[in-house]
Amino acid sequence: MVAEIVPQRRSAESPAEPSAESPARSLARRAIDAHDGGKLEVRSTVPVRDAADLALAYTPGVAHVCSTIADAPERARELTWKGNTVAVVTDGSAVLGLGDIGPQAALPVMEGKALLFKEFAGVDAVPICLDCRDVDELVDTIARLAPGFGGINLEDISAPRCFEVERRLKERLDIPVFHDDQHGTAIVVAAALINAAVLTDRKLADTRVVISGAGAAGVAVTKILQTMGVTDIVVLDRHGAVHPDRGDLSTAKRELATASNPAGRRGTVDDVLPGSDVFIGVSGGTIPESAVASMAPDPIVFALANPDPEIPPAVARRHAAVVATGRSDHANQINNVLAFPGIFRGALDVRATHISEGMKRASAEALAGIVGSDLAPEYIIPDPFDQRVAPSVAAAVAETAQAEGMVAARTP
Amino acid sequence: MVAEIVPQRRSAESPAEPSAESPARSLARRAIDAHDGGKLEVRSTVPVRDAADLALAYTPGVAHVCSTIADAPERARELTWKGNTVAVVTDGSAVLGLGDIGPQAALPVMEGKALLFKEFAGVDAVPICLDCRDVDELVDTIARLAPGFGGINLEDISAPRCFEVERRLKERLDIPVFHDDQHGTAIVVAAALINAAVLTDRKLADTRVVISGAGAAGVAVTKILQTMGVTDIVVLDRHGAVHPDRGDLSTAKRELATASNPAGRRGTVDDVLPGSDVFIGVSGGTIPESAVASMAPDPIVFALANPDPEIPPAVARRHAAVVATGRSDHANQINNVLAFPGIFRGALDVRATHISEGMKRASAEALAGIVGSDLAPEYIIPDPFDQRVAPSVAAAVAETAQAEGMVAARTP
Repeated sequence: MVAEIVPQRRSAESPAEPSAESPARSLARRAIDAHDGGKLEVRSTVPVRDAADLALAYTPGVAHVCSTIADAPERARELTWKGNTVAVVTDGSAVLGLGDIGPQAALPVMEGKALLFKEFAGVDAVPICLDCRDVDELVDTIARLAPGFGGINLEDISAPRCFEVERRLKERLDIPVFHDDQHGTAIVVAAALINAAVLTDRKLADTRVVISGAGAAGVAVTKILQTMGVTDIVVLDRHGAVHPDRGDLSTAKRELATASNPAGRRGTVDDVLPGSDVFIGVSGGTIPESAVASMAPDPIVFALANPDPEIPPAVARRHAAVVATGRSDHANQINNVLAFPGIFRGALDVRATHISEGMKRASAEALAGIVGSDLAPEYIIPDPFDQRVAPSVAAAVAETAQAEGMVAARTP
Repeated sequence: MVAEIVPQRRSAESPAEPSAESPARSLARRAIDAHDGGKLEVRSTVPVRDAADLALAYTPGVAHVCSTIADAPERARELTWKGNTVAVVTDGSAVLGLGDIGPQAALPVMEGKALLFKEFAGVDAVPICLDCRDVDELVDTIARLAPGFGGINLEDISAPRCFEVERRLKERLDIPVFHDDQHGTAIVVAAALINAAVLTDRKLADTRVVISGAGAAGVAVTKILQTMGVTDIVVLDRHGAVHPDRGDLSTAKRELATASNPAGRRGTVDDVLPGSDVFIGVSGGTIPESAVASMAPDPIVFALANPDPEIPPAVARRHAAVVATGRSDHANQINNVLAFPGIFRGALDVRATHISEGMKRASAEALAGIVGSDLAPEYIIPDPFDQRVAPSVAAAVAETAQAEGMVAARTP
């Protein structure tokens, strides 16, 4: 997965007051301090001044609300927090760059995610950290707790389990299920590539793309680019290009092998990169300067590994026309927070039952569109703090959901 | 179960402005209005003013917090919301007086419960409405979602399943698991009985008690009274006194039959009430005035069915020295909100791993003690809005938990 980086001023890396400790040590210390007591609270949105208030918000008044929902289940979206609330669910198996640290140690990330949902899109999000790993158990558990939520954001669940967990939950539930490590990343990468292609005067359909990383992000980026007309995509895992003749592939990678790499390219990044138009790194590996130098003229390089890009941006720029990273201290940061808050905002607003491929593509196009006439090699994707981002993405998702008819019934 | 009633001014029953609609209709309409958009939100407790804040609350800073918890799991209680957060879990099978309305229709009650946790004790509570009924599935699901919470409040799960669900979760988890319909009710009834016994110059050990209702509340009230020295307790279900010779008893009721009714009394309430000192109704049935008239001199009558007590308080008062109900519009309201917020406040404050019988008893004694020298037939239990209630209960639970050593380890 791509570890998300929220933009940080360099000042965030250096202590407010002069100090002998290193910037990294200072950040660690201040992060621990900032987490004292956690980062979230649950609050009442109705007045609780006196007994009269409670007679409405609780018994006996609440009984009328329960009966109303029992008779007309769709009204739960109006009469409870369900209509604005998403569960952020993980099993702690693939957390940031830390890997498998378990559900409890993953909670700070889920709280952070919930905080971003609220701050960027007004969505109430609840961290749910599950102590199970089996796919059947994950699917059953998440489906059982779903009635009280308007959407499910899957987070930091390791590949390949994440693919089946999401697929089966989408079949089983009538609320959106969205694995952010896959689709959030894919949407933002697609938005950046749309603009990078414009800058380098390319048609997406004609571009040769190499993706380093065949996990959740790599698979999802491949799929969204294919829906946008890109046909020549080669995906590499640590053993090289994924192609059907390889005997060492998981089910998910076997599907990927047949769905991608039409030219049947093989070998390492050094073998497949020459002549390619686009490199997208979502791996954590590294690529040599020579490989970038061997790409087609004016290539596009998205080196998204965190904290260390697959190639230093300054080195990539010697050869590439457009360079993006996952880091906030370089231009063109590919950051999931550009997508997920607006995605769920739009989905909840129209009671979307799924997040379709069309909605993801519309989100990517809306994100790309925000850049507009300011488009430049150092500005292919908006800043996460750009106030236009979440509303634009939400509107794109809402319009597409309604156009596709993927919305739940409302009370007549 | 006893449907909780939160105290309401009579004014809450009549619309603010003159209206032709009935009080009941007015309450229903205003309750629906009050629930528009639900009653809860999730908010950030840390500043999110800029990128520097997010670099601490989210990546890259959050990674240090995750690693800290991975190395020292107990620190999750300090560095996440776990230390102050309870899951309010239901399957919607026994909601208020409404019965089995399912998980989604139960959500307004769980939101109301969460609101009371926060308003009365500053506990963050998250409604979790589960779409499953099988005991194994409920236990597994709740255990799997437990890592992110500091306690589990079970709510509105029908008997007898509620007994086994709670028992197995207590065995499996190292955080408090508390079925409020059982223990919250039992604690408040016990507190009221302590003071009623003082008023009528009785020793609890010498009292003859009749409990109408052998569900969650009836069983829990029986158990807590036994821990307080009451030996002569007869429990009635709709078929009469529960005793070992009955062939129609569930496992739970068979256990109850052997654990209670030492005198082997049989028959209906009319058969067992004569000469008894205490009647506790948690059933929803009714008892005739003649039965109350047949009790021992200066009897104690707790008619807790909602909205209609087993006998009208005015009628009971003709014969009883002390009368309590579940209603806020009569003196001596037996209301669970007197217990559960303080119980979890105290448990979370000391990292209690269980809510023991000792903690429940200490809570009842603390509640009874608040009344103190103001004790009177019309004032045997404090008002839910008495500011002393939650802190007194919390202190009793915390002290007992520490005295019993039922607390989780802290970071050295």
